Amino acid sequence: MFKDLLLRFLEEDIGRGDITTEGVFRGERLRAVLRAKERGILAGGGFAEEVFKLLGDVKVLYRREEGQPFSEGEELLILEGSGDSILIGERTALNLLQRLSGIATLTRKFVKALEGTKIRLLDTRKTTPGMRYLEKYAVRVGGGLNHRFALYDMVLIKDNHKLLAGGIREAVRRVRERISPVYRIEVEVENLEELEEALSCGIDMVLLDNFNPDDVREAVRLSRGKALVEVSGNINLENIRDYAIDGVDFISSGSITHSARWLDMSMRVTTL
Amino acid sequence: MFKDLLLRFLEEDIGRGDITTEGVFRGERLRAVLRAKERGILAGGGFAEEVFKLLGDVKVLYRREEGQPFSEGEELLILEGSGDSILIGERTALNLLQRLSGIATLTRKFVKALEGTKIRLLDTRKTTPGMRYLEKYAVRVGGGLNHRFALYDMVLIKDNHKLLAGGIREAVRRVRERISPVYRIEVEVENLEELEEALSCGIDMVLLDNFNPDDVREAVRLSRGKALVEVSGNINLENIRDYAIDGVDFISSGSITHSARWLDMSMRVTTL
Amino acid sequence: MFKDLLLRFLEEDIGRGDITTEGVFRGERLRAVLRAKERGILAGGGFAEEVFKLLGDVKVLYRREEGQPFSEGEELLILEGSGDSILIGERTALNLLQRLSGIATLTRKFVKALEGTKIRLLDTRKTTPGMRYLEKYAVRVGGGLNHRFALYDMVLIKDNHKLLAGGIREAVRRVRERISPVYRIEVEVENLEELEEALSCGIDMVLLDNFNPDDVREAVRLSRGKALVEVSGNINLENIRDYAIDGVDFISSGSITHSARWLDMSMRVTTL
Amino acid sequence: MFKDLLLRFLEEDIGRGDITTEGVFRGERLRAVLRAKERGILAGGGFAEEVFKLLGDVKVLYRREEGQPFSEGEELLILEGSGDSILIGERTALNLLQRLSGIATLTRKFVKALEGTKIRLLDTRKTTPGMRYLEKYAVRVGGGLNHRFALYDMVLIKDNHKLLAGGIREAVRRVRERISPVYRIEVEVENLEELEEALSCGIDMVLLDNFNPDDVREAVRLSRGKALVEVSGNINLENIRDYAIDGVDFISSGSITHSARWLDMSMRVTTL
Amino acid sequence: MFKDLLLRFLEEDIGRGDITTEGVFRGERLRAVLRAKERGILAGGGFAEEVFKLLGDVKVLYRREEGQPFSEGEELLILEGSGDSILIGERTALNLLQRLSGIATLTRKFVKALEGTKIRLLDTRKTTPGMRYLEKYAVRVGGGLNHRFALYDMVLIKDNHKLLAGGIREAVRRVRERISPVYRIEVEVENLEELEEALSCGIDMVLLDNFNPDDVREAVRLSRGKALVEVSGNINLENIRDYAIDGVDFISSGSITHSARWLDMSMRVTTL
Amino acid sequence: MFKDLLLRFLEEDIGRGDITTEGVFRGERLRAVLRAKERGILAGGGFAEEVFKLLGDVKVLYRREEGQPFSEGEELLILEGSGDSILIGERTALNLLQRLSGIATLTRKFVKALEGTKIRLLDTRKTTPGMRYLEKYAVRVGGGLNHRFALYDMVLIKDNHKLLAGGIREAVRRVRERISPVYRIEVEVENLEELEEALSCGIDMVLLDNFNPDDVREAVRLSRGKALVEVSGNINLENIRDYAIDGVDFISSGSITHSARWLDMSMRVTTL
Repeated sequence: MFKDLLLRFLEEDIGRGDITTEGVFRGERLRAVLRAKERGILAGGGFAEEVFKLLGDVKVLYRREEGQPFSEGEELLILEGSGDSILIGERTALNLLQRLSGIATLTRKFVKALEGTKIRLLDTRKTTPGMRYLEKYAVRVGGGLNHRFALYDMVLIKDNHKLLAGGIREAVRRVRERISPVYRIEVEVENLEELEEALSCGIDMVLLDNFNPDDVREAVRLSRGKALVEVSGNINLENIRDYAIDGVDFISSGSITHSARWLDMSMRVTTL
Repeated sequence: MFKDLLLRFLEEDIGRGDITTEGVFRGERLRAVLRAKERGILAGGGFAEEVFKLLGDVKVLYRREEGQPFSEGEELLILEGSGDSILIGERTALNLLQRLSGIATLTRKFVKALEGTKIRLLDTRKTTPGMRYLEKYAVRVGGGLNHRFALYDMVLIKDNHKLLAGGIREAVRRVRERISPVYRIEVEVENLEELEEALSCGIDMVLLDNFNPDDVREAVRLSRGKALVEVSGNINLENIRDYAIDGVDFISSGSITHSARWLDMSMRVTTL
Repeated sequence: MFKDLLLRFLEEDIGRGDITTEGVFRGERLRAVLRAKERGILAGGGFAEEVFKLLGDVKVLYRREEGQPFSEGEELLILEGSGDSILIGERTALNLLQRLSGIATLTRKFVKALEGTKIRLLDTRKTTPGMRYLEKYAVRVGGGLNHRFALYDMVLIKDNHKLLAGGIREAVRRVRERISPVYRIEVEVENLEELEEALSCGIDMVLLDNFNPDDVREAVRLSRGKALVEVSGNINLENIRDYAIDGVDFISSGSITHSARWLDMSMRVTTL
Repeated sequence: MFKDLLLRFLEEDIGRGDITTEGVFRGERLRAVLRAKERGILAGGGFAEEVFKLLGDVKVLYRREEGQPFSEGEELLILEGSGDSILIGERTALNLLQRLSGIATLTRKFVKALEGTKIRLLDTRKTTPGMRYLEKYAVRVGGGLNHRFALYDMVLIKDNHKLLAGGIREAVRRVRERISPVYRIEVEVENLEELEEALSCGIDMVLLDNFNPDDVREAVRLSRGKALVEVSGNINLENIRDYAIDGVDFISSGSITHSARWLDMSMRVTTL
Repeated sequence: MFKDLLLRFLEEDIGRGDITTEGVFRGERLRAVLRAKERGILAGGGFAEEVFKLLGDVKVLYRREEGQPFSEGEELLILEGSGDSILIGERTALNLLQRLSGIATLTRKFVKALEGTKIRLLDTRKTTPGMRYLEKYAVRVGGGLNHRFALYDMVLIKDNHKLLAGGIREAVRRVRERISPVYRIEVEVENLEELEEALSCGIDMVLLDNFNPDDVREAVRLSRGKALVEVSGNINLENIRDYAIDGVDFISSGSITHSARWLDMSMRVTTL
Repeated sequence: MFKDLLLRFLEEDIGRGDITTEGVFRGERLRAVLRAKERGILAGGGFAEEVFKLLGDVKVLYRREEGQPFSEGEELLILEGSGDSILIGERTALNLLQRLSGIATLTRKFVKALEGTKIRLLDTRKTTPGMRYLEKYAVRVGGGLNHRFALYDMVLIKDNHKLLAGGIREAVRRVRERISPVYRIEVEVENLEELEEALSCGIDMVLLDNFNPDDVREAVRLSRGKALVEVSGNINLENIRDYAIDGVDFISSGSITHSARWLDMSMRVTTL
């Protein structure tokens, strides 16, 4: 169903037509090579390929395997086909590939930083509007797991919900009364007192928000056997090992999506 | 017409419903304050406001003026209304505001770096797929000008088009034969020889791609009175002054969109 | 977001125009009364109201409370407004109201049959294509809880998945490796051996498919403290008490949606 | 054009992805058999087939002929292909097939009850919102004829229109003045006086609403050579023969769509 | 439901924004007068009004009555409101008004030519793709009646259908077997032999295609009391009275839609 | 991307189905010939072809080259395939072909009238709402060039913008301040004084609106080397040579789109 999404992206860039290519093109066939200009992890190769195929009459000769590291100068995608499809699709394909590979590459660094622990990396809902499906895909390619996809597939009681209900206990009670039992319930807690209240409600998962490492250690002790433990809040590549405490189940980070830098790539063509 | 876009963003995050809020909400009314957690330039306040209004029964009490600098801790948007609309819209509104303000803030830094010159900053088509309208808006808020919006509103002859046509002259000739005269023609050139060829075709604008400052100076001399001059290629805040050469009309940068970092912001609610 | 759905329903019945009403209507204003022709539980009153409002210039004078029982002949909705909106919306509003109230009414009977137990009634994905959001809403109005909404919000390992993976254990292992930990995992089991295998995998919920009451009793004993227990398979109003065994958490039934009969209702108008 | 409809149905059930199948699936190919668990008339086989094809890489090995009776246990559809398409499409395909075959099966019973007469069975607009195209198709498969599809393709003057216009004669006059002559005009009448008024207007068809058999007989006598006669109102399989009076052209029934029970079917897979 | 259509028209002309108005506009409010530059019949005033309202913050001060004749220089629509909405909507509103009034004006001439007879003017399906709803509306405004709207609301057996079925009789038989009896059946005939065959099938309406006036007279005699008679084929304002033969029910003409000339109109603004 | 447009056109004519063809069709295969009934220039053959292909199972045997003149009776398109696709697509394909060829034919006459000059013919935005992409395509096929496509791809300062800004100079200044430099700026002028003001602003193109030939000559003299000159305003085939003055760059005409007459064409089928 992502075809509709890709068509919308193409429509955004093409609209009623690429006037440069319409002017220049006289039926030539081209070979195009998309190449990395810096090292990273590839994500989105299949979507880039699909972008060209949607424009028509383009064949893929080679596509580097998704999730694999590449070095500077390496070929990522080689195409052959009608020159207009190749020139018209270039920017949309590159924008996708550069953004998604940027996310996968950054995610992989976080995942590497957790090697040797049992802790898994989770993403958040801090994704570019309209791109969540693709950006969460890139996180998985990079080795992370996805947290909930959206507001409809898990209960996550945060500060503002507690305030609305007048406390964790009442918030959980209200949810249990109305919401289907098929969803996990997670509660975001600010301190150890809130943690104890949350644990006493029999929930599935706790999110320790902005805890220091010592409090995380204590929280892990309290939660053992009662709930999965997620640690979050301004964790970066510098400090992640401080939070990689035995007994923590998940570390989540918004920065793997919202602060990922685009990787540099380019496309060159030759006539056939 | 951006309402459709915002509705699509809301649909992405909400889908069939926010199960946490549906569980917790019992008709409470809330006041919400969106606040900056670091300094920057505001962009997207009107879109954030619209996100909440689309969800219904929310009134805006205060909105900081678009394009104005704010400091850490400042209030950006104050709302009052039905608690469910406020909680459900939070993430979509913040994602927009954080991304767009990030772009405006970075753009402003580039624009500041050009102060005292007549050179204007331009963006590129290196925008997040599906977000171009909004991201180019943020560039304008930050003080930049937009380059072409898409493939349909200006002719820009780049490397691959030259290769297709067998040269700049033939590419320009083909475009003139087929494409409406209402569009400006720009040619991307790699060196001074290409520049001279392009200028001899009577085009409107040249894009000096990856020229060093000395060559830019020579290019400016050659182009005077013949074409507008745009300089591009790995220009950043460190080296931009080296390229801010008298006679250059525009400096364009992809990084103001693709490498802008999200600004940190948060929303807190109180019951009414 | 259900407005799009209602607009699609109206479009289906109206298309390019109601030629009878266009022929007859000369600006008259009408009062309309929607009335039950048999007893039941009301569901969908708000949607029926919205149908008329979408057609324009109609005011609701009275709407019976959602989820309340009504008797034969009772008024459910009283409207006043432009005669064309009222006549054109009649069939779409009634079709919705009759279908949804039919589901709520049947659901209530199942819920009543479980009174005095701690067992909650769940629905299934056996809903009319395109109507799931509305039909699951009607189940809640009738007093049931919703099982997963769709394929994306809970893991439910059924026969065909076991066969694909070569067994329950391997199916669960594969899911854990790839799928976000925020989703509950339920396994459908055919017999007590499968149940024991499933329980040993540490899953959240088991679905006992077509178990006889004695096996349900044994299953409950085995599952205690390990997983929530759902009983399913050809349970109807006649035999539901046989399955209402202490320790069962949920009984689910497809028939509350797919076999609900429409309730009889009608609309009468008077001129103002 | 029904592909859009089927895509919408799939989207409803799949959304951002089937997390169970995504977890379990490792590229296996499957054979799937859809089988009846009770006897009936098949309708919707082509739509079910299309559901799987839209998901991709599935071949149909056998499909039972549309409109043919099947017995308990019979194979209705046999597929081979990629395991994920088969598992993901199962519920949508079955929901369609069970609902549509249920309608065709009930329709056939009504049609059988009219055997030996010249009376044809008609449906109504009492169809599930969003499903009219498919449900009316199932009626035809079952041997019935369709009444008007929607408000735009026939004039049918009912009680509320008469009240609006102040009588049958005025209602017909208004329609003739404004509406294209290419549409048939039918008038719903409550008694013999109304029938005589309607017939005197030179209309095409009368709908005898809730007439008893004796009045139907008299109505037939009055209408002969003047208008087609349709009998309607709480006619069921028990009393339909009482209304199957010589000279009646059509008997219409809402229950063949709104009260049809889903037929029981299931899908089993084997690995290839 | 025509709002979607108007939004699509606006989207076509505006896309990502009116760059001239965006450049010039500084919040000014304007009064705008749309005026006829030649005489005609007004059609589409309500749609033009809606175009401006969709753009927002525009009030209608005066709108000339639909279907009324206007003379050169007359005011058709007077608006007040935000200058950008008025300037941006101008072209779309005028294009609609000029096209639809052109159709209504030409239709009125045909209708006038039939004055004193009982013959009614019908349109055809020869409408601009995407504009049928609006163009057929303009025909009604001009005093014509609409023939069938599309392929779904009347049976019209033409040459190619006869050829497919091997004759009129078989074509009618096939239709009766499969198609709902609620639709009128019309047969297009090329000569008097075909007419006699068609009439013998008991159809509702005949279309005499390219008959000369004498044959029309004979056809009328044969059809009396058996079928409605429509005359068609290259009838224009010059020869229409030759075909306005007593007993003919309808004359249909494609030219009232496909050959209508746009009426000349313009919009002038003043600042408030 | 025009497929969506064609699907919408088909949907308009077909809706829920062609009841005549559904009634008559029994699987026959047909050959169809679309033929001109008068001479002209072909435009839209590819779109007509696509219309049939979208309906399925139709092969094109011959298609006359786009932009070529044809004489009365000539074959334009020959198809073979499933009879229902051919009969159902006929009207939509013909409506497109007749309208677009009408535009190309009229455009060619204007272009011919300018032969021997360097003046190029331009179209305007006076196109049928929803058809701009296709109608502007037909203009190119006829030998004209397209003026701006819509409000977003060129700045054109007209009367109402001047009034808003209080003059040409201020309007140009405002545009330069806000709008991207990649767009050409054209100013519509009413007289020679306005022309001089416009030229003094350094714009790209002037539109001489309703100038008489003598004033055009003077305007050309003033504009030489400063701006491209476009002449517009009630220019028709009779007076176009009067305006074909040396130094004029473009003559634009709304009548080539809004006053083009449909060319007469028809489709005949034979069984295979």
